[in-house]
Amino acid sequence: MILGFAIVAFLLSLLPSTTQTHLKMSKIETSFIPVEATSDFPIQNLPYGIFSTRDAPNNKRAGVAIGDFVLDLSVVASHFKGFDANCFSEPSLNTFMGLGKQAWDSARATIKKLLSVDEATLRDNAALRVRALIPMANVFMHLPAQIGDYTDFYSSREHATNVGIMFRGKDNALQPNWLHLPVGYHGRSSSVIVSGTDIRRPCGQVQADKANPNLGSVFSPCRILDIELEMGFFVGPGNKLGEPISIDQADDHIFGFVLMNDWSARDIQKWEYVPLGPFGAKNFGTTISPWVVPLAALEPFRTEPSFGPEQKPAPLPYLLDKNYSRGTYDIELVVDLTPENGKAATISTSNYKNMYWNPKQQLVHHTVTGCNMNPGDLLGSGTISGEAQNSFGSLLELSWQGTRDIQIADGETRKFLKDGDSINIRGFCQGQGYRIGFGDCKGKILPAHL
Amino acid sequence: MILGFAIVAFLLSLLPSTTQTHLKMSKIETSFIPVEATSDFPIQNLPYGIFSTRDAPNNKRAGVAIGDFVLDLSVVASHFKGFDANCFSEPSLNTFMGLGKQAWDSARATIKKLLSVDEATLRDNAALRVRALIPMANVFMHLPAQIGDYTDFYSSREHATNVGIMFRGKDNALQPNWLHLPVGYHGRSSSVIVSGTDIRRPCGQVQADKANPNLGSVFSPCRILDIELEMGFFVGPGNKLGEPISIDQADDHIFGFVLMNDWSARDIQKWEYVPLGPFGAKNFGTTISPWVVPLAALEPFRTEPSFGPEQKPAPLPYLLDKNYSRGTYDIELVVDLTPENGKAATISTSNYKNMYWNPKQQLVHHTVTGCNMNPGDLLGSGTISGEAQNSFGSLLELSWQGTRDIQIADGETRKFLKDGDSINIRGFCQGQGYRIGFGDCKGKILPAHL
Repeated sequence: MILGFAIVAFLLSLLPSTTQTHLKMSKIETSFIPVEATSDFPIQNLPYGIFSTRDAPNNKRAGVAIGDFVLDLSVVASHFKGFDANCFSEPSLNTFMGLGKQAWDSARATIKKLLSVDEATLRDNAALRVRALIPMANVFMHLPAQIGDYTDFYSSREHATNVGIMFRGKDNALQPNWLHLPVGYHGRSSSVIVSGTDIRRPCGQVQADKANPNLGSVFSPCRILDIELEMGFFVGPGNKLGEPISIDQADDHIFGFVLMNDWSARDIQKWEYVPLGPFGAKNFGTTISPWVVPLAALEPFRTEPSFGPEQKPAPLPYLLDKNYSRGTYDIELVVDLTPENGKAATISTSNYKNMYWNPKQQLVHHTVTGCNMNPGDLLGSGTISGEAQNSFGSLLELSWQGTRDIQIADGETRKFLKDGDSINIRGFCQGQGYRIGFGDCKGKILPAHL
Repeated sequence: MILGFAIVAFLLSLLPSTTQTHLKMSKIETSFIPVEATSDFPIQNLPYGIFSTRDAPNNKRAGVAIGDFVLDLSVVASHFKGFDANCFSEPSLNTFMGLGKQAWDSARATIKKLLSVDEATLRDNAALRVRALIPMANVFMHLPAQIGDYTDFYSSREHATNVGIMFRGKDNALQPNWLHLPVGYHGRSSSVIVSGTDIRRPCGQVQADKANPNLGSVFSPCRILDIELEMGFFVGPGNKLGEPISIDQADDHIFGFVLMNDWSARDIQKWEYVPLGPFGAKNFGTTISPWVVPLAALEPFRTEPSFGPEQKPAPLPYLLDKNYSRGTYDIELVVDLTPENGKAATISTSNYKNMYWNPKQQLVHHTVTGCNMNPGDLLGSGTISGEAQNSFGSLLELSWQGTRDIQIADGETRKFLKDGDSINIRGFCQGQGYRIGFGDCKGKILPAHL
């Protein structure tokens, strides 16, 4: 461990001279930290997370990902101006999230400067670099925020239609309200967990007879364990109870995005969800990626008007975003399933731009009745399915309710998750010579307690 | 203000001699603080709350209600043994809630002793009494806990049946799952507010045509604003993700009870709730009473087996409480409506013992899939309706979907709430010569923002 740090310190001490030359060959912003073109974390990204190290696993503080390193913001706190940077020593990003856009912009500019190939502060100070830049392999990542409330939406038209066809037939696939408002429900914040946390297969009540709910229920381990490919965003400054957020203000209340897997027990859900919605089928685990990608990093990837799904009928005025179609982002999403043999297979390839209702509309609708948001609240997109069969965001859709085999590695197949299966969701915006990535969003299924 | 304190201090200094004589005439436990037989807060109750005073409204700390006074637990912290009583100086009860039954029993014994007519510590120390006992009229009450997650159930058979008859007819009133599990849903914790907080009439989407959802929606202030008479309980020690709480352990995870009013926008709910449950119709405010009555105070009021509704079919083993019928409590509940003229009228009289699913079963079912609870989580009972028409717990039922007038004072009537109306829920267990009460749970409707 100590040897590992020493080697890294030595390698870091070699960096400046080589990277300075590199800058002159490149047109894009560059860090003195070497970053591969396929890395999730170039200097254009700078996502925030909460981490600790092996020698002090409970000392949680804020960091920024850069290449294969984490910049410890508590170590460089004195460089930030215009806000109280002690918030970076806190075990969650809630305070920083609540400071708002001016502080976020200022922090981002400072971090970008500190990591720039042209800036000597860190680049030429080997002792400071060793303290401030920690190899990612040596950190534990934690939840980025204390999530006061977690809400999940249902905003992909393709997903809602697919599920609707399965349960109600093609003619009644979308409920009457779906095209008028972003349907959502309150989720369970305590069971939102960070990537890498194992998921215990849940037990609960399922229908005794699949086809006939009037025959009652039996207690059983979940037999139809599923994923939901989602993204989520963290709320920045909140609003007061009774004071809705308007569509024009919405962006200022959004801090940044993570990947999300809303694990779902479909057989438990089917029995329990009428009339108040999903409950135990969803509250045993919701995995998020640890790095929160700020809006500023996603800005170049806002979709052009021609990309967004047309909203027809036009939303009511409170939801009408004059620039609505630029309110989603072009984020490529990939779902990999790895069984116990360790061989990963991609089972879905989707894109966040498939969303019908955009995050601003979700936030505005959430507060329209006066609901108060707080910094660190998490809003999930709902399952992000595209039109093509291989872009569906759940096994329920990929296997079409268990009627089709999903191919994985070595000729194996799945309909739903088996014990020992791991799921990883990845996501990135592809720039010219760099990508804005989100890191891993993974979890492994442990057998049920019986 | 200072004069007020001085007068109270003087009155307190007169107490000991008179109350000592009083004890000898009474068979029940007595405090040196005079408490009326109709007070909510005799020495048999000792509910916990978080308060501050006018001179330092942000200095929140823990107190116990006794008669017309609040005992400041932070002032008498040195008297507690066996746990760290610094938790009483915190602005929420979460830490204390998480300590568990042994600490709660110890704290309760200490508080009972300190307030007893036989104990000199406070009784005979005028200076300490002035610091430790604050007139209730001089305190602000706050939320007793930072509520990580709030869940609401739907556990009164009469309520579920009434609503079912209105929406689906008599033959299909209860959904197939209702008698097999306590149906519940995740609520919004940020908008749980303490008694006395005003409620802004929400705006949102309602059906353009009441009878036909296919005609879309319009934006409108809520026109069918309702209450839900409920009780809630706070979770004590939690459980780990993936490790359900068993029915035999459940009582040890329940800290205590409050009154609750789950304000509901019925027209918004009707349009939005399919298929994921109520959302904006419920997240604009949920009022709770500030004093958390501990299980120990309610214990003498557990219902006898003959009082509880029979659970038939028998619940699955994980929900089967061998003493299930003693798992509810005989708590009389009263709902008063006061219009702007200030004349209160009782519109409903119900009882917590009407519950079909008891709080232990709610907690156990909540965790059966592995959901983790945390100290300070709040679980609502659902609307508590009895069989008689005047015991219904919502205006929806009392006015039978707006088809009947509800009489209030001065010959006025209501079907649903008007701007300016105040609702107060009260509740108490009636003992011999004393009552275990909950204090007020009230809120007033402000007009919608337009």
